[in-house]
Amino acid sequence: MTAETQLSPTPRSTVIRGKKRAVQDRQVLYDILDAGLVCHLAVEVDGAPFLIPTAYGRDGNRIFLHGSTGSRSIRSMVEGKQVCVAVTLVDGVVYSRSVFHHSMNYRSAIIHGTATIAEDPEHALRTIVEHVTPGSWDYARSPSKKELAQTVALEIDLTEASVKVRDGGPGEEPSDLEANLVWAGHMPLVQTWGTPVPHETDKAIPPHVSARGR
Amino acid sequence: MTAETQLSPTPRSTVIRGKKRAVQDRQVLYDILDAGLVCHLAVEVDGAPFLIPTAYGRDGNRIFLHGSTGSRSIRSMVEGKQVCVAVTLVDGVVYSRSVFHHSMNYRSAIIHGTATIAEDPEHALRTIVEHVTPGSWDYARSPSKKELAQTVALEIDLTEASVKVRDGGPGEEPSDLEANLVWAGHMPLVQTWGTPVPHETDKAIPPHVSARGR
Repeated sequence: MTAETQLSPTPRSTVIRGKKRAVQDRQVLYDILDAGLVCHLAVEVDGAPFLIPTAYGRDGNRIFLHGSTGSRSIRSMVEGKQVCVAVTLVDGVVYSRSVFHHSMNYRSAIIHGTATIAEDPEHALRTIVEHVTPGSWDYARSPSKKELAQTVALEIDLTEASVKVRDGGPGEEPSDLEANLVWAGHMPLVQTWGTPVPHETDKAIPPHVSARGR
Repeated sequence: MTAETQLSPTPRSTVIRGKKRAVQDRQVLYDILDAGLVCHLAVEVDGAPFLIPTAYGRDGNRIFLHGSTGSRSIRSMVEGKQVCVAVTLVDGVVYSRSVFHHSMNYRSAIIHGTATIAEDPEHALRTIVEHVTPGSWDYARSPSKKELAQTVALEIDLTEASVKVRDGGPGEEPSDLEANLVWAGHMPLVQTWGTPVPHETDKAIPPHVSARGR
């Protein structure tokens, strides 16, 4: 792991709580972002924190978000402001011999940055659509000028980020492990794609959709 | 639906974007919180928004969170401050005939409130443990005084909240629907529990664990 691929150790992106779960490899950050579908974006609005759950897409060391250009839009709330973005994947729950050491297995990415208007909005939208529904950008009707004008795309740099990962079974107090009075272990939580549900169409399910669940 | 079961219509908890997805029934808020495992808590720290993904549990019209009492703890960051909490469940992706109307199916709950120290920390911890790992509080070793002293429990009132739900197939432009050039529909995303993985134990898997996936 070189300095370039390491995550940045600024004070707020340094993991304090649960330090042993901290991961320094930038590739793990990318893998988590690529595996998630929704992020949570936090921004201050009228002096209080405000959360927006939203789709995103990653391109290199940045992510794109999008929203409409309407009132109380993501643009008016977020542009130029400091934001925090989280993508959290829950992989399971952990049953310990003690209540205290019950836990969850997860992959967590937290990004600190500033949201700016994406220089190339069409590229940003393509990145988001291809992240959420791979293959759809070239398959479905392209956005019209009017549709593009209704959409704003934002970008956030991934330089300042922290990553935590927990997997496997419980940590235990040595005395609980020795006494071994109860069952302990972990239970995976698995996400799978269900069967596609057609919408008023007699067309065959295209490969970019049918191949997804396999 | 009576006024009491309706969600509060404060300006910040009134859904502007995607208004047709807004849900006013408080029971839907509770159902979303009961179905989720992790929430995202946003709070301002040093003038910037900060996000904490964490477990929670609901009891009536409040949720509990917990953390350690260590440095840069959830308590020091959050106690007495305005917070925003989100629980988002992704139920699938939506393939439209146009790129523009691609979407996701989801259930989203956003809560605005102030985090206070829970009056009865043991009840709060029990609520969280029983939410994440039902049956574990009575089965596993109870927290010692020392363990309880290392833990802080916070509570957040659910009065000011907004809920959005999207399900089903795509919305379409009438012209895209008429032309009907490509396949459209939606694909469910399903979460299931995997097989429990024992941890250094010869004990039988207890019913509260083995029954979970069924």
